[in-house]
Amino acid sequence: MAEIVDQDPTQQILQQVSKALESGRFVHVRRLLQSMEPEDVAHLLEASPVRSRDTLWQLTDPELHGEILEELSEDVKDGIVAQMAPESLVAATEGMDTDDLAYVLRSLPQNVSRSVLDQMDAQDRQRVQAALSYPEDTAGGIMNTDFITIRADVDADVVLRYLRMRGEIPEATDALYVVDENNFLIGEIALTTLLTTQPDVQISEVMTDADEAITVTMDDGEVASLFERRDWVSAPVVDENNHLVGRITIDDVVDIIREDAEHSMMSMAGLDDDEDTFAPAVKSARRRSIWLGVNVLAALAAASVSNMFEGTLDKMAAIAVLMTIVPSMGGVAGNQTVALVIRGLAVGHIGQSNTRFLLAKEAAVGLMNGLLWALIIGSVVYFWKGNLVLALIISTAMLTNLIIAGIAGVAIPIFLKKLNIDPALAGGMALTTVTDVIGLMVFLGLATIFLA
Amino acid sequence: MAEIVDQDPTQQILQQVSKALESGRFVHVRRLLQSMEPEDVAHLLEASPVRSRDTLWQLTDPELHGEILEELSEDVKDGIVAQMAPESLVAATEGMDTDDLAYVLRSLPQNVSRSVLDQMDAQDRQRVQAALSYPEDTAGGIMNTDFITIRADVDADVVLRYLRMRGEIPEATDALYVVDENNFLIGEIALTTLLTTQPDVQISEVMTDADEAITVTMDDGEVASLFERRDWVSAPVVDENNHLVGRITIDDVVDIIREDAEHSMMSMAGLDDDEDTFAPAVKSARRRSIWLGVNVLAALAAASVSNMFEGTLDKMAAIAVLMTIVPSMGGVAGNQTVALVIRGLAVGHIGQSNTRFLLAKEAAVGLMNGLLWALIIGSVVYFWKGNLVLALIISTAMLTNLIIAGIAGVAIPIFLKKLNIDPALAGGMALTTVTDVIGLMVFLGLATIFLA
Repeated sequence: MAEIVDQDPTQQILQQVSKALESGRFVHVRRLLQSMEPEDVAHLLEASPVRSRDTLWQLTDPELHGEILEELSEDVKDGIVAQMAPESLVAATEGMDTDDLAYVLRSLPQNVSRSVLDQMDAQDRQRVQAALSYPEDTAGGIMNTDFITIRADVDADVVLRYLRMRGEIPEATDALYVVDENNFLIGEIALTTLLTTQPDVQISEVMTDADEAITVTMDDGEVASLFERRDWVSAPVVDENNHLVGRITIDDVVDIIREDAEHSMMSMAGLDDDEDTFAPAVKSARRRSIWLGVNVLAALAAASVSNMFEGTLDKMAAIAVLMTIVPSMGGVAGNQTVALVIRGLAVGHIGQSNTRFLLAKEAAVGLMNGLLWALIIGSVVYFWKGNLVLALIISTAMLTNLIIAGIAGVAIPIFLKKLNIDPALAGGMALTTVTDVIGLMVFLGLATIFLA
Repeated sequence: MAEIVDQDPTQQILQQVSKALESGRFVHVRRLLQSMEPEDVAHLLEASPVRSRDTLWQLTDPELHGEILEELSEDVKDGIVAQMAPESLVAATEGMDTDDLAYVLRSLPQNVSRSVLDQMDAQDRQRVQAALSYPEDTAGGIMNTDFITIRADVDADVVLRYLRMRGEIPEATDALYVVDENNFLIGEIALTTLLTTQPDVQISEVMTDADEAITVTMDDGEVASLFERRDWVSAPVVDENNHLVGRITIDDVVDIIREDAEHSMMSMAGLDDDEDTFAPAVKSARRRSIWLGVNVLAALAAASVSNMFEGTLDKMAAIAVLMTIVPSMGGVAGNQTVALVIRGLAVGHIGQSNTRFLLAKEAAVGLMNGLLWALIIGSVVYFWKGNLVLALIISTAMLTNLIIAGIAGVAIPIFLKKLNIDPALAGGMALTTVTDVIGLMVFLGLATIFLA
């Protein structure tokens, strides 16, 4: 994999640019930037520390600022937009897609976003204001308004002539939408169908009915899973009265799919999914300290359990030496289950119909692995410390904790989801607290009864 | 989120189906299955325990088996294919895309895959054998061979007439590929361009040059990142001599993007990314026990460190009570950094040019959060145990461990990647071992010097 990164042309340019920046050869940097596509400049900005990022932004062609902004991840985009003068922002937003423009406007101070809106023509302003009226994470928030509509009662030939006259078709268009005189969506015709239809055939005969249109209020995760299952390239969006109001394209859906999948991984480590890798340390430290604060409580909970058995620990140091093993194994086993369940919930595989099966299965997995590792760890402890009772105690604690880890690993994420708490964010920490407390309780409790 | 899952129509059907299965109403199940799209049946199979899965498969229309297989995730597909008779497999694979067919054939016993190949017509067999000759995780392994080629010296009108005569255009086609008489790729023309071109214009005048074609050997992750950056819907694939050999479509790329993103999350928990949520317990237990085995070594390493200080632990039980706090905080802080770096490596943001910046930044984050939590935990310990020396010791250990966690969190994944070891798989465990060992060493070491 190391070679692949080094082969990546962006990495090579990144190195050239950062060397040129360090030695202050700004003209060279500007020339390098001019040779790059806007999406590659965006990648370069994301991969640069904040200070170089600002310099790079000054050196890019202002003509491309809009296109670059569209490609940036949220955190990085916010940082750059916050430093731009209102006039340059107005200039940059010209020609942006409605959804991206709405996103940028949302993150601006009220007076700046107003002045941007004021300088747009009436039709564009209306479209952007419509987009702004929908929450960001719904179909309405991610749709564009650049689609082509036709009527059902015309011939294919008329449509072809209309398209030639129009001269331009919006990006990622794979279908034209068929509407009636009230702008009701009644169907769509794929470009591929249009191209294989004889000129004298009426559109109504070859269009497909709009039986599965996306509504503006649909959650963006649901939109993504529909696109994924149906292999769509674009799809029309309708309001509650089935009026056609917009179009969602696969490139925006791909971003959602990547963000959702990354969200689980980042949340499980206690990070924001749009955390900027190259943010200033102070900003990162502040965000992450909250998560460490939650873990302090979990660690103190475990310490309080040990504290209850202070007398036992006082009598036999070997118990203190071994007491971290059982919680550690329980935490790892339980987090395997948590990760599995979080993915299952995210892709919609887990629901009421199979929760009971999953609980039984994961408990059984815990039982089997519990027996295996109880045997191994028991033997290790027996030969290390030469104490059969201690070996039996750690084996029992291991078995108990792994079974509980399996059950808690299924129950905690599902329960959190019922409470509308993100299982990816809180699941791992809650699980670890359970397995720490139970593991210590059983191990130290048994040691207190049989050894102290 | 809970409501969304319950609103999901598949979840509702899933409940109906599992109730009908339990009460043995197979005719009803068959009727439910008939009303579903192949991709929804695939989703249902993935969300069912293995036993119901087999019954459901028997009850689905064999005509749809091919389409359903194409939509299944690898682990589930393998399980079903393994149980199918060769004849039904041959029937099911009719009409499958080349890439999916190649995938299925790869997982079959030699003699079965041969008999499937034997029953195909010569041209199809040649295409599939070509696909089989490329590794699965390259452009060659994921491409299809269903594309349309045209010549550069014909008029748009000729192309339109050719398409109408052809009558069908492969799915997800957004461009026709322009080749010369030797099948060299020289350009492509988007369907949208074709539709807006006057009939008497030559293709050569409106086509775009093929300056960024994908080669068959390109890694599938690179293909995905190109699609994502360039917003492609499909792209041509060429061999080393620039002959056009295939086409990659966005639906296959979306699967790769989701798998790559899920891979990090699943690997970090020690799971295979195609682990089947509803696999039999024995199978899951066997796979996961390996990861627990790795953790046993890590836990024993930590225990050996404690063991070195058995004398100190013997003298003061409070040390044993508190000794888990510092490793726990170090592990959580370090894993935040590890998750950030793994994502940065996956999306190509981290390379030689910015590693040093990242090390300094994460060490600074560790310093700041170390100071904060050293102060808080020090105070807690002082008021809890009334021992100023003990409070100072735990504060010092906390600060040291969080700084080391930041540095190790950057260094370990990058180092693993250099060694060609997947950082998502091994990074978290290696980090935790480092923070456990260092945390215990510093805390118990200082306690031995100043308290024992």
